[in-house]
Amino acid sequence: MTAHDIDSLDTLRRRVREFAEARAWQRYHTPKNLVMALVVEAAELVEPFQWLTPEESSGLSPAQHEAVRQEIADVLIYLTRLADLLGIDLLQAAGDKLAINARKYPVDQAHGNARKYSEFQND
Amino acid sequence: MTAHDIDSLDTLRRRVREFAEARAWQRYHTPKNLVMALVVEAAELVEPFQWLTPEESSGLSPAQHEAVRQEIADVLIYLTRLADLLGIDLLQAAGDKLAINARKYPVDQAHGNARKYSEFQND
Amino acid sequence: MTAHDIDSLDTLRRRVREFAEARAWQRYHTPKNLVMALVVEAAELVEPFQWLTPEESSGLSPAQHEAVRQEIADVLIYLTRLADLLGIDLLQAAGDKLAINARKYPVDQAHGNARKYSEFQND
Amino acid sequence: MTAHDIDSLDTLRRRVREFAEARAWQRYHTPKNLVMALVVEAAELVEPFQWLTPEESSGLSPAQHEAVRQEIADVLIYLTRLADLLGIDLLQAAGDKLAINARKYPVDQAHGNARKYSEFQND
Repeated sequence: MTAHDIDSLDTLRRRVREFAEARAWQRYHTPKNLVMALVVEAAELVEPFQWLTPEESSGLSPAQHEAVRQEIADVLIYLTRLADLLGIDLLQAAGDKLAINARKYPVDQAHGNARKYSEFQND
Repeated sequence: MTAHDIDSLDTLRRRVREFAEARAWQRYHTPKNLVMALVVEAAELVEPFQWLTPEESSGLSPAQHEAVRQEIADVLIYLTRLADLLGIDLLQAAGDKLAINARKYPVDQAHGNARKYSEFQND
Repeated sequence: MTAHDIDSLDTLRRRVREFAEARAWQRYHTPKNLVMALVVEAAELVEPFQWLTPEESSGLSPAQHEAVRQEIADVLIYLTRLADLLGIDLLQAAGDKLAINARKYPVDQAHGNARKYSEFQND
Repeated sequence: MTAHDIDSLDTLRRRVREFAEARAWQRYHTPKNLVMALVVEAAELVEPFQWLTPEESSGLSPAQHEAVRQEIADVLIYLTRLADLLGIDLLQAAGDKLAINARKYPVDQAHGNARKYSEFQND
């Protein structure tokens, strides 16, 4: 089925936009509403993991895996729609943020621990 | 700066993996922990919008826009990391989900309203 | 029905504990798991509001109101359980936090605006 | 300090209302905005737990415990404000929901497992 053939984030962006416009959903798709939808989907992704041990969370059953896969897709779809409306290039934003994170979490200070960058010694 | 040059989701996936491995963060990156980090970032994206009217949310100041851009990037980074660990192809998952959504929200029933699919008449 | 007669937060705390213990759910009720359950319930409370205008959100239908009421209850139930496990008195914690907030948001600076305390002038 | 002396949820409700009204925040406090603020606070409560093991989450340091206590308080404060605006009695709502949960999770079926009620056998 050709609807599945999405070869890039830019293609996804256009497909999601067409999906919304075909349904005249533009008036619902304000940034405020879309961040709400996004956090709802993110929480639906949390839900199947809430009572699992960390180990169990790495060994999902096929049914759980498929459910999680669909929730992950929903998060990406809303994220793409939000970024489109705000004129944000997702890959460029992620690349810039990784560079920021590399400065906030230098390998020698962050290695093997999960401290927040604000807890690092400045020395 | 070359660290910024991310030309595809697959490149992003590899960069995020290298970032985590260079810091020996694999033991923190269980799916359970990553969905928690993801919902935290999604909520940080909600925060700048919480007191705005829908109209204001469409006209962010440059400083607000940059802050939102970084939060969007954080969501994508954790989503990419989670999908990598679960062996999920993000674009394929999104394409499959769009096809499901197209069936759940037929244009003629969903046009111009935001009802949930479960509220549609079956007739 | 007497199960409904809860006259204080302390009675609620005991009822929620009995509910969990009768089902041998203590091993699931770690603080980590409970904050996950709590954010899931908080997002379920967001969901009915995501496509509403602020005005519509103040005029829920009876069915919407009852659904929201149940989600609010779920948040309180998990919050009560979490606080019980951590030995936190909810009312005392809220009273202390209101005192902190009163210092962070002095009436003269916070009046009529929604700026974050960190944006106030120090003068 | 008398501001701390909150002896019931109803007293808390009045204090939170006075706090908002003294700052003329009523126009920001629509139900839509308040559920956003609530999920943001719930996620801030998730954040300190995200990289902890379940065992570590039961043994917080005093500094972590106090931070968590303040986040729990923020959730309760927004929940109280939201319920006040919607005319919902928190304790009554929680009592009613516990009765519903008792029917959804009968002791004999729910004992020692964390299955969702929809997965129970009807037999």
